[in-house]
Amino acid sequence: MDDILAKINAFREERDWRQFHNPKDLSISISLEAAELLENFQWKTSEEVLNGDMENVKEEIADVLIYSLMLSSDLNMDVKEIIEEKLHKNSLKYPVARSKGNNKKYTEL
Amino acid sequence: MDDILAKINAFREERDWRQFHNPKDLSISISLEAAELLENFQWKTSEEVLNGDMENVKEEIADVLIYSLMLSSDLNMDVKEIIEEKLHKNSLKYPVARSKGNNKKYTEL
Amino acid sequence: MDDILAKINAFREERDWRQFHNPKDLSISISLEAAELLENFQWKTSEEVLNGDMENVKEEIADVLIYSLMLSSDLNMDVKEIIEEKLHKNSLKYPVARSKGNNKKYTEL
Amino acid sequence: MDDILAKINAFREERDWRQFHNPKDLSISISLEAAELLENFQWKTSEEVLNGDMENVKEEIADVLIYSLMLSSDLNMDVKEIIEEKLHKNSLKYPVARSKGNNKKYTEL
Repeated sequence: MDDILAKINAFREERDWRQFHNPKDLSISISLEAAELLENFQWKTSEEVLNGDMENVKEEIADVLIYSLMLSSDLNMDVKEIIEEKLHKNSLKYPVARSKGNNKKYTEL
Repeated sequence: MDDILAKINAFREERDWRQFHNPKDLSISISLEAAELLENFQWKTSEEVLNGDMENVKEEIADVLIYSLMLSSDLNMDVKEIIEEKLHKNSLKYPVARSKGNNKKYTEL
Repeated sequence: MDDILAKINAFREERDWRQFHNPKDLSISISLEAAELLENFQWKTSEEVLNGDMENVKEEIADVLIYSLMLSSDLNMDVKEIIEEKLHKNSLKYPVARSKGNNKKYTEL
Repeated sequence: MDDILAKINAFREERDWRQFHNPKDLSISISLEAAELLENFQWKTSEEVLNGDMENVKEEIADVLIYSLMLSSDLNMDVKEIIEEKLHKNSLKYPVARSKGNNKKYTEL
């Protein structure tokens, strides 16, 4: 991860783009890329998408990850750490006993 | 990354949640978490957010990453590889010479 | 429409909220409300949602409309006019002969 | 509103598109159009956008409205009614006395 983050940061530094990368606009960018990913599934089932050309799906997932890693880097957040903390928090909200095989929100459990 | 991905997958397997995790709904989930992240910046400047409690920002970035890693795992995509490929593609769309210090889209460059 | 727009504007003026309602944050708000609407469909089929409590669906559609009407009002856009113009433009992008019964994007037609 | 809704419905009926317009995919579409609207503001201030070409902003607001009106039509919701109900509900969540000039969420008031 340190290696890939270094490449992402080098990419924007070479272009002198850090001046545009404030957290609000990076969060907007993550939303926009997530929508571009989702656009692949508009009017389609997952199966139809899986049977088609997955190139754009792959690129949009990469874009979501790139902007998310930029933002966590700018906020000095360690990606592994924040994911582990969130998984821990989720495990308390969704105890295995009550959430197994259940797609309800924790507020409805 | 392999380590953190294993933890994410263990989390959903323990809860028997893979049955709900089709690519379309995972893409929806990434969009929803991206919106929850962005909600922290609604009506506010980046500075106002940075001076406040960043706990929810951290959690929502983690959620975006968790769902993105689930989806790439389900589609057998290697995260490092797809990010490197996308950075390469972006470097062709945004050559340093023309995009340096410039926030224009490649279609306007 | 003039009547409902007057009510929407009265609501924010009574609360002195116009100061926060710049077009960028209103656009963010439309995205956030659209996500809250979509959240009702996460992990579910349309049928499952239609058979459940539709109260939140109704409220989130209303929120998307309220913010969209605020934004068009602030930008001095006439809602009927911009919808008619867009329908006209779409009719050129999607001629009936080529798009009938077809869910492809105009770029793929 | 009845007039413009009739035009929107005629547009999709001529193209035999109602078969694709289930509530889940229409909600996805509202989110996608909201993101396309927001993209106009990526890396920019509201002022910079207002001083530029507003054509795309106008078109994307129209798209958000078109899909929202389609969805409310399909769900037999009266647009004026659901907006008035939501404004009433919001007025209880945000009493003038406590929310005047205040951009806090009702949960923080």
